[in-house]
Amino acid sequence: MPDHAAGPRPVIAVMMGDPAGIGPEVVIKALSSGAPQAYADYFMVGSAAMAERVAQLIASPLKVRAIGHPGEARGNAGTLAVLDPDPAALRGLPFGQPNAQAGRAVRHWMDICERLVSEGAVQGWVMAPIDRTSLKMGTGLAESGEAVLEDVPLLRISGSLRIVPLSEHIPLREVAATVTPERVSAMIGLVHDTLAGWGVEAPRIALAGLNPHARGQEETAVLAPAVAQARARGIDASGPVSPDAVFRQCLDGRYDIVISMYHDQGQIALKTAAFEGACSVHLGLPYVHVTVPHGSAFDIAGRGIADARSMSAALLAAGQLASGRYAMRPSTTEHSRS
Amino acid sequence: MPDHAAGPRPVIAVMMGDPAGIGPEVVIKALSSGAPQAYADYFMVGSAAMAERVAQLIASPLKVRAIGHPGEARGNAGTLAVLDPDPAALRGLPFGQPNAQAGRAVRHWMDICERLVSEGAVQGWVMAPIDRTSLKMGTGLAESGEAVLEDVPLLRISGSLRIVPLSEHIPLREVAATVTPERVSAMIGLVHDTLAGWGVEAPRIALAGLNPHARGQEETAVLAPAVAQARARGIDASGPVSPDAVFRQCLDGRYDIVISMYHDQGQIALKTAAFEGACSVHLGLPYVHVTVPHGSAFDIAGRGIADARSMSAALLAAGQLASGRYAMRPSTTEHSRS
Repeated sequence: MPDHAAGPRPVIAVMMGDPAGIGPEVVIKALSSGAPQAYADYFMVGSAAMAERVAQLIASPLKVRAIGHPGEARGNAGTLAVLDPDPAALRGLPFGQPNAQAGRAVRHWMDICERLVSEGAVQGWVMAPIDRTSLKMGTGLAESGEAVLEDVPLLRISGSLRIVPLSEHIPLREVAATVTPERVSAMIGLVHDTLAGWGVEAPRIALAGLNPHARGQEETAVLAPAVAQARARGIDASGPVSPDAVFRQCLDGRYDIVISMYHDQGQIALKTAAFEGACSVHLGLPYVHVTVPHGSAFDIAGRGIADARSMSAALLAAGQLASGRYAMRPSTTEHSRS
Repeated sequence: MPDHAAGPRPVIAVMMGDPAGIGPEVVIKALSSGAPQAYADYFMVGSAAMAERVAQLIASPLKVRAIGHPGEARGNAGTLAVLDPDPAALRGLPFGQPNAQAGRAVRHWMDICERLVSEGAVQGWVMAPIDRTSLKMGTGLAESGEAVLEDVPLLRISGSLRIVPLSEHIPLREVAATVTPERVSAMIGLVHDTLAGWGVEAPRIALAGLNPHARGQEETAVLAPAVAQARARGIDASGPVSPDAVFRQCLDGRYDIVISMYHDQGQIALKTAAFEGACSVHLGLPYVHVTVPHGSAFDIAGRGIADARSMSAALLAAGQLASGRYAMRPSTTEHSRS
């Protein structure tokens, strides 16, 4: 573990996700390992009653401890601090189905987390999976509030593969028009500045090409000049690199991060490589916000069989990022599935 | 190994590739294992003198044996049959550099292989890597003759991942226009009929979507109807499947083959998964023709350190395909690199 001269130990809020889903289970499993706590103190925002039930279900060594404010999350190893704004609610909530009360509670917990980061009471927050049906039943709104983050670039992390796409869910036929000098240069700058803010020195940024073998008009007219400009500003940018080679090269440690030109370009690499845990970090926010790329899995909720590796990756990343001790270079904790 | 009621044991010609590159080495290494010979008899088309040098270099147990026609390739285990139209040539050729004589010879060997398959004297041919500079120096033509195959769909095989793209090297901005009902239906039919011809019963064909999560106008207007039509004809077609999920699902054995919508969509999956050996099969030809996705690697030629796993995969696939004994379903010979 690196031993940088970092700031004070951060405190991270973890919204438990839909209480009827696997969110509470994966959070408690991930915290039970003790690994994320090397970088930060964590507390859960959610139902203490549900946390208690799930901790018993999975025989967690952590003892649930109700807290009133984030400062109480510090220390107390062996406990699971839970900030619950309404301890009487949600007792006896059935697992595995949408519920209006749960939806209202989730909305409230998200508001609390947003308030805590905006006040600086916590240095980041992690969101466990929510359920849109519960949310709609409870609040009348189908959207999670995450919708306002649609324009915020989302960094995906899976093992040593780190990818930020230039665009998200747009039709493929509209992709080429989004590859403009302004957008590409802005993204290179954002990625560089964000990583630098996380304490990563001279991040090696690769720009994927748009066309087969990175040979086409966008490479010549837009991407190569953007890389040259970035290098002139002292940024370690490379590319455009052939799209079918750049992700394997990142996996092999040649780059720290890849800027992909569209959603599927990076997502195909991520999901095909299929590392054991993956998480997503919103870029450009004044605080750390990390999510996991899976849902609340009502079909297996309450059975203790949920896979917590993505949540473990999310908690670890949040703690490392908030502490300025993010381990960007190849680590030993990385495994492939196949 | 499957024991189908298959046709007579096929004979496969293997063009040694540029004699100054790693082609002869990977072919001899692959044949030295004896594994491909479970399905077919093989002989090399190329320089017997170079084959002799390389066999000694890598201490191959195979003894080089000159033959005059393909029929002599049968039997004679422990030997490496070589059909060399000009045994006096290429003696003492230096490794690792382009050479006009070598280029002329390669062109001649390719013509011989084409003639042998067209006459039915062999049931397929495998091409080891050639060098375009040698070819140009020797023949004045930069293209390999493979150029005439540009419109022939190319099936990539890497472990249990099998992918045929709907188009090859076209700009991304032109991709959407190529996703037409006619082209998609023709490709589904070609893939089905080709695999059926190889003895694969009811191949499970997945169609990748074009857009993120396979949600877009092409999915609704073109891809879903094409799948429905194929199913009505008794073809086991699925999709359109989310592009970021379909390749992992193929790797996991849910499909036998994926039709990808453009070059990089499939190539990103293939190269990121990075199985140990990969080969490419031309579809729609009246004979089996298999290539490897790497070059002649002049930088390491003549040193005995070339990786023969892709050539092994190519020889095995050619033998299995030509014998109608292609093992499509998950095998035990598959390994991931990471």
